[in-house]
Amino acid sequence: MSKEQNTIFIGRKPPMNYVLTVITCFNTPDTKEVTLKARGQAITTAVDVAEITRSRFMKDLKVSRINLGTDTVQLREGGTRNISTIEITLSV
Amino acid sequence: MSKEQNTIFIGRKPPMNYVLTVITCFNTPDTKEVTLKARGQAITTAVDVAEITRSRFMKDLKVSRINLGTDTVQLREGGTRNISTIEITLSV
Repeated sequence: MSKEQNTIFIGRKPPMNYVLTVITCFNTPDTKEVTLKARGQAITTAVDVAEITRSRFMKDLKVSRINLGTDTVQLREGGTRNISTIEITLSV
Repeated sequence: MSKEQNTIFIGRKPPMNYVLTVITCFNTPDTKEVTLKARGQAITTAVDVAEITRSRFMKDLKVSRINLGTDTVQLREGGTRNISTIEITLSV
């Protein structure tokens, strides 16, 4: 089964930039799902993007799946640090 | 049906403080579920709390439900602002 999936990596830009990317993705033919991936402080931005898209632009959008996770990051000064991640899948 | 439910509001304290609260809740007899609620920047902390509790302290813990939402906050200088919220339900 091939899945039409688009993934958007959420970083430090304002939420509205990513909201426009999500809407653009859904306007591509055959796009039924868009996944937002974020880690650390960008997790809040990812939730903002999902909520703004749903409440202001695409009322019929559903949050179909949310996964939490942990990434291990190599620090430049040696050692490692754990950072939380989130994946939010939106679908029409 | 009565549900044994505990809710922890996540704020600006370090994640470890809330992790200890979660563990304490689960050590209370008959506690099967604990819900973390957070909004704004504390959303990241809530995800950290869920991940740290699960990976370091309670390996058999499951994220049984995640809800996203939006709260409307009254600003002191007039007007309103929307703020994203998250509810993460952990269960054994």
